[in-house]
Amino acid sequence: MKLIRFGAKGDEKPGVIINDKWFDVSHLVADYNEFFFGGNALSELKAVIENASLPEIDKDTRLGAPMVRPSKLVCVGLNYKDHAKETNAPIPSEPILFFKSTTAIVGPNDDLIIPKNSKKTDWEVELALIIGEKASYVSEEDALRHVAGYVLHNDYSEREFQLEHNGQWVKGKSCDTFAPLGPFIATTDEIEDAYNLKLWLTVNGKKVQEGNTSNLIFGIPYLISYISQFMTLLPGDVISTGTPAGVGLGMKPEPWYLKPGDVVELGIDGLGSSRQLAKAFSFL
Amino acid sequence: MKLIRFGAKGDEKPGVIINDKWFDVSHLVADYNEFFFGGNALSELKAVIENASLPEIDKDTRLGAPMVRPSKLVCVGLNYKDHAKETNAPIPSEPILFFKSTTAIVGPNDDLIIPKNSKKTDWEVELALIIGEKASYVSEEDALRHVAGYVLHNDYSEREFQLEHNGQWVKGKSCDTFAPLGPFIATTDEIEDAYNLKLWLTVNGKKVQEGNTSNLIFGIPYLISYISQFMTLLPGDVISTGTPAGVGLGMKPEPWYLKPGDVVELGIDGLGSSRQLAKAFSFL
Repeated sequence: MKLIRFGAKGDEKPGVIINDKWFDVSHLVADYNEFFFGGNALSELKAVIENASLPEIDKDTRLGAPMVRPSKLVCVGLNYKDHAKETNAPIPSEPILFFKSTTAIVGPNDDLIIPKNSKKTDWEVELALIIGEKASYVSEEDALRHVAGYVLHNDYSEREFQLEHNGQWVKGKSCDTFAPLGPFIATTDEIEDAYNLKLWLTVNGKKVQEGNTSNLIFGIPYLISYISQFMTLLPGDVISTGTPAGVGLGMKPEPWYLKPGDVVELGIDGLGSSRQLAKAFSFL
Repeated sequence: MKLIRFGAKGDEKPGVIINDKWFDVSHLVADYNEFFFGGNALSELKAVIENASLPEIDKDTRLGAPMVRPSKLVCVGLNYKDHAKETNAPIPSEPILFFKSTTAIVGPNDDLIIPKNSKKTDWEVELALIIGEKASYVSEEDALRHVAGYVLHNDYSEREFQLEHNGQWVKGKSCDTFAPLGPFIATTDEIEDAYNLKLWLTVNGKKVQEGNTSNLIFGIPYLISYISQFMTLLPGDVISTGTPAGVGLGMKPEPWYLKPGDVVELGIDGLGSSRQLAKAFSFL
């Protein structure tokens, strides 16, 4: 199943994609929230919509992030060797974890707002996953049972805020609009092999990132098990698994970053694509 | 006004403390959540209860954290000189920020569960504040307008997880039960001078931390303004302002940490006190 949320910002409703058409399911489920992912609602929805006649939605409608604001958005740093290398960082001996503020979450095609005082706004295409069943101290063997689905994520990062303002990456990861998620959540049955998905990102049509999840240093079961040793993962929580090489920070001969008017497009096999237009910050 | 939440874990109801007695206000407000702190509900509640006859609650009732799970729990690191010194860290040139997972939040007198595989579970008494009005790019001058109240926080920290597992403190800050909050939120009118509050913490009756918020390196208006340059603060969000000297990590001649059976008590002038009994992790 492919889950979407559609409508105006702050007023999104749940929907599904079937055969490339969009349908409203807001009469069937309240929303894609902690309750939905933690219970039987996902499988119940799947059973119901097979025989239902659903109201179709115009594909010009805005998409929101395909889940209600989660309790947390956990990210994994430097989880592709080529990306660690381009940023002159050592290959991690165990996963690097950081949080993004959930206020950074926006729809897949919403504008990227370059923060006030930002000089180094950068992109990162990532495979993210959505937690289904609550996870605390889970084993690697049991970990995939806790995944509800997968989603495309652009982990926007302000490198000066992240790296040059006295410690802890959260400062450079949490600005408004820094976490476009979607277009849709693909439930686990839609993705045959999460370890062999191509991911790519272009800036103004120029391909800058091109990778494959087969190159993840720490795989998804390991990550879930590892994170769940340090904190409890709730249904609907998002884990973003890291980005391959090709970010602005790693560009040779020198880094380059986003400016107003730039267009960022990204995609992952089976998870669709998204597009953000960079705009300058304005109080208006 | 002093806001409490009472009842069984996961089923807390809102209440208030008046003249040292506890009262139920669940017939007047839904709960102390984002909507409550962001709107006029706080001042409306205050007006209503002045003339209302409220159902009294037995003071043996369990207290939960005095706010619904916030969108984030932002902490400031090394914000007292004596604490930076005891941990051999330099005085920060600008605030160090990190997040705790909101799943760490518990009631003020709930047990501390020492995590599985933990050898270095440590304490940190802190003054925390609750955001009222949403804050994004606010000035230092306007910052206090965005504070709804203050609350006592024990920022429990697993030092090995925090410092010896490859970067980013969030790993050592987010275990379940690592954020006891309360007993109550004191609204801003209750606290005459947030910059002159004594704070203290004892382990098994021995005083280990004793400080005063007058020694904060970065004061509350500066912190709110600073954080709001990097992320949007939502109503109900919690900011914890840092801990003074006297943590286990800083003990001489060598660090010492909590073990099952230890009792931690802490308090801040005007914000009451809390007490946690340390227990070993168990799947039961």
